[in-house]
Amino acid sequence: METQRELPKKYKKEFSHSYTLGPFPTFELLLCRPESAEAVYFEESFTERGKLSEACRAAGVPCICSKRALERISSKENCYAAGVFRKYEGRLSPDMPHVALVCPSDMGNLGTILRTLRGFGIRDLALVGNGADVWNPKVVRASMGALFRMEVESFPEFSDYLNRFGEGRSLYPFMLDGGTVLTPESCPRADRYTLIFGNEASGLPPEFQNCGQSLFIDQTDAVDSLNLAVSVAIGSYLFTQKNGRPGQAESK
Amino acid sequence: METQRELPKKYKKEFSHSYTLGPFPTFELLLCRPESAEAVYFEESFTERGKLSEACRAAGVPCICSKRALERISSKENCYAAGVFRKYEGRLSPDMPHVALVCPSDMGNLGTILRTLRGFGIRDLALVGNGADVWNPKVVRASMGALFRMEVESFPEFSDYLNRFGEGRSLYPFMLDGGTVLTPESCPRADRYTLIFGNEASGLPPEFQNCGQSLFIDQTDAVDSLNLAVSVAIGSYLFTQKNGRPGQAESK
Repeated sequence: METQRELPKKYKKEFSHSYTLGPFPTFELLLCRPESAEAVYFEESFTERGKLSEACRAAGVPCICSKRALERISSKENCYAAGVFRKYEGRLSPDMPHVALVCPSDMGNLGTILRTLRGFGIRDLALVGNGADVWNPKVVRASMGALFRMEVESFPEFSDYLNRFGEGRSLYPFMLDGGTVLTPESCPRADRYTLIFGNEASGLPPEFQNCGQSLFIDQTDAVDSLNLAVSVAIGSYLFTQKNGRPGQAESK
Repeated sequence: METQRELPKKYKKEFSHSYTLGPFPTFELLLCRPESAEAVYFEESFTERGKLSEACRAAGVPCICSKRALERISSKENCYAAGVFRKYEGRLSPDMPHVALVCPSDMGNLGTILRTLRGFGIRDLALVGNGADVWNPKVVRASMGALFRMEVESFPEFSDYLNRFGEGRSLYPFMLDGGTVLTPESCPRADRYTLIFGNEASGLPPEFQNCGQSLFIDQTDAVDSLNLAVSVAIGSYLFTQKNGRPGQAESK
């Protein structure tokens, strides 16, 4: 049944809503952020349509069969189901470990980082400066919906982040000329910490050398650097192994 | 100077040659595999054209200013320099640690994996089955040219790999229902080992449970799984930390 509802438009950054493309992130949206979900669309041939309508009913979200709406949302890609959701404000917890990304530019990396952090039990991500749009459907898709299990908060400058969360917190900027070589043995013990990573092409500005204890992930000189998502994965894995998993009792 | 040379064609898998898109992988090609380089193209406005012609001269490779050739090779993307190279056969060393990827499907992941492995000192990669084309320019670019510092060998089936390299080698398939939880402490000690990873969507087939010691990267159940490139990064980082860096004396 096609409905009278206005057709959704191709995503733009200035929208107050965004989309989940594909069944997996759509189910994650309905499970973790039902209050932000506005509508779900599916294709007639979608095999899990029963499960999807069930999840929509539980979340109180309209579930609409509309190929045209899917085509509008997903442009090129073939997509059996998609969700529409209002953007919301995440709030970092002052007691939790954080990861801070300064001007990340690649949407695939950003999505992979969300998925990885949630996989290693870190829930709080600070986005500093004018980087990739975390709400872009490409990020949501690359995160496999992990975005909805994270608290993501944006800060214009790193000083804005520090003013709110710096006190009593150990800071670890990851830099190619970092002072400590990070290995499983050398990984610091800390209660409340922030792992800080720079942009894919330019890294962190040199002044971050004076901001806590800079770290360098042990690597050969056969490569220029590691991929950003790989660096975040190694750093967050080692820190959560050494210092325990935060938020294991969390519901999301 | 535009030359009489025939213009290169948009890449196809069946070609016996491929392309490096962008200055960085092109310099890596000239440095690490000069014998396979056939030509280099650059744009008139490319700022490092002096350095590039120097590298081409050292490698005995023609260096041609041609915007049209670049446009043909790189289709949409703007690209200041690109190389043409003949595909070559890599050869795994029986004495080195290996990573084996069974039917990886994402080209970005494959490139990131090449870059990561080289960064952690693993040089030998086995590609099993009919996965992504390692020579595709997107893979070469995502690898940041690390492809040219790796030995990559393809095998139709995993049994073909085992017949050649299985003897006296410890095998570690990475599986979501792996028998051992992999942490820095539990990471096995081994002289010659192969870390085995499956496809992004489907993982390894269940029969790999009977192939060596299956491993599961410690992760929360808030995510379905980790991204493939992230899994390979964690596995290869821990194994090279525990067992030492192979090939640190290598030239490439």
